[in-house]
Amino acid sequence: MKHKTIQLAHGSGGRLMNDLIRDLFLRVLHPDQPAEMEDFADLRLSGNRISFSTDSFVVDPIFFPGGDIGELAVYGTVNDISMGGATPRFLSAGFILEEGFPVEDLEKIVASMARAAKKSGVRIVTGDTKVVHRGSADKIYINTAGIGESELDLNISSSQIKAGDRILVSGTLGDHGIAIISVREGLSFESPVTSDTAPLNGLIRKMVEAGGAAVHAMRDPTRGGLSSTLNEFAESAGVGIELNEADIPVKETVSGACELLGFDPLYVANEGKLVAVVSHEAAPKVLSAMKQHELGTDSADIGYVTGSNPGQVIMKTELGSSRIVDMLAGEQLPRIC
Amino acid sequence: MKHKTIQLAHGSGGRLMNDLIRDLFLRVLHPDQPAEMEDFADLRLSGNRISFSTDSFVVDPIFFPGGDIGELAVYGTVNDISMGGATPRFLSAGFILEEGFPVEDLEKIVASMARAAKKSGVRIVTGDTKVVHRGSADKIYINTAGIGESELDLNISSSQIKAGDRILVSGTLGDHGIAIISVREGLSFESPVTSDTAPLNGLIRKMVEAGGAAVHAMRDPTRGGLSSTLNEFAESAGVGIELNEADIPVKETVSGACELLGFDPLYVANEGKLVAVVSHEAAPKVLSAMKQHELGTDSADIGYVTGSNPGQVIMKTELGSSRIVDMLAGEQLPRIC
Repeated sequence: MKHKTIQLAHGSGGRLMNDLIRDLFLRVLHPDQPAEMEDFADLRLSGNRISFSTDSFVVDPIFFPGGDIGELAVYGTVNDISMGGATPRFLSAGFILEEGFPVEDLEKIVASMARAAKKSGVRIVTGDTKVVHRGSADKIYINTAGIGESELDLNISSSQIKAGDRILVSGTLGDHGIAIISVREGLSFESPVTSDTAPLNGLIRKMVEAGGAAVHAMRDPTRGGLSSTLNEFAESAGVGIELNEADIPVKETVSGACELLGFDPLYVANEGKLVAVVSHEAAPKVLSAMKQHELGTDSADIGYVTGSNPGQVIMKTELGSSRIVDMLAGEQLPRIC
Repeated sequence: MKHKTIQLAHGSGGRLMNDLIRDLFLRVLHPDQPAEMEDFADLRLSGNRISFSTDSFVVDPIFFPGGDIGELAVYGTVNDISMGGATPRFLSAGFILEEGFPVEDLEKIVASMARAAKKSGVRIVTGDTKVVHRGSADKIYINTAGIGESELDLNISSSQIKAGDRILVSGTLGDHGIAIISVREGLSFESPVTSDTAPLNGLIRKMVEAGGAAVHAMRDPTRGGLSSTLNEFAESAGVGIELNEADIPVKETVSGACELLGFDPLYVANEGKLVAVVSHEAAPKVLSAMKQHELGTDSADIGYVTGSNPGQVIMKTELGSSRIVDMLAGEQLPRIC
């Protein structure tokens, strides 16, 4: 690359944009393939039922303990596609770059996307780059959209949730949010908190193999945390959810940081965790499959679905009392992902 | 909507974001359907070959003569998907909103996306919203990604370009770029210039019906204009391209504005035009099909592919001399789309 920083001309559609695509994006993402420069990707699928999702990423800072915006952009969409049991296959990547952004940082981020794509088993097959004037964006924003193949023909959706179902989470809550806030606030802990950003498709595959159609619903509790996901489940299925606080896994450092900062771990973002609603009968088997996967070692059964209090999530606290766990009302941590 | 402007909490993952999705996005985009709030869309295709593309839109101003950022975001991706002959079916939409952005403007833009989607025959099936602090974006940026179905099983690609092929354009050049710059610079013309933003899938269908496999390559000359598209064709196919300036359609107002501003219409962006490379034999038939379509009335045969001067685009000027038409070298109009 001739330039050390991104110029407006890198988004011009002309020579410099072609150089950027060829000398950075294609070289880093597809080192072994001849450069293809069409505006679309021509793809073959093995079946004709797909899962399609998109997310934009505006996380601040762009490099954080345990990951960066590039990795997050790949795993975030991989996870959304996977939540219905589909196998993620193809991603698009749209970059909005601020004029003056260091090319070196862009290259680090794209390399991180390449590694994350490889780890998730997806290919980044099409993309776009826009450059805006200094001050019209903050460094870099990335959108990914993704296509997964639903070859197992499952029907995993909040509409399947039934009274009696168990609520399973795949590990400790709040790691991503606290990793981000600790950088922003300059906090340091004895044992550093790192983001949990990870691709969940492998874990989901194991859960589906163990539980089949008994896995009723799945979602990754990102922005808004576990509380928002469970409230969405309760509202859309017209059921109540009861949690047992003592069973909810939270790392000691994270719960300490939450106390210090006045946060509740139930509202803090996760980027490598899922919550699943599984039939009462199949829950132990699915939980055991989760615990055997490297991304599910801290999995736990944290509560159940009930026919009473439809639309509400209620938690039995460690002190024995009960409290309503509402959806996040205001804003807690802007630009967490 | 309770708020008149976008709040950081509209991107929180919590209550306000849910309200925004339900009360604005879903209400405007899918007024006749029950609200679905999963993080992915579960879709059925009729075949298993697809076209996949993405674009982010950062155009400034967001409302301009002949269109707005919402319409542009739909048609831009619809057109990219269609350039291989696929039928566009599904779009995703990712919004990055600046804190303080008027909800009224967002609603106008989303309504415009709904109309554009209807006109193009696509459905917006999944989305995402992020909100950044005031000053970390400029009003609104939109990413769309799209899936088209390649049921005709064509192979339209720059690799098919052969010496002797004709170069066809579907109408006048430079309308979009001049419409945008006239607003930015406060210029007014006797006959106002409006953006040509339009969905090209219907026109393409007619061209493919007329020409079949004789339609070798197609692309929409957006950023970088016709010159950049033709240079990309010449480079990737290893051929030369010769243009005849007198045959290139440009509106009088646009060529006047270009003279005034020091632009060359060959480098100015279009948003509702395509350039096609078609076999010598089939070109008259394809051109006639183009002229019969409402978006192709000003179509023209502007030159041909040659085996000499590989990688170069050369234009015979109206004065009888020849000049090299290079790819856009610097930046001409940032944030044109």
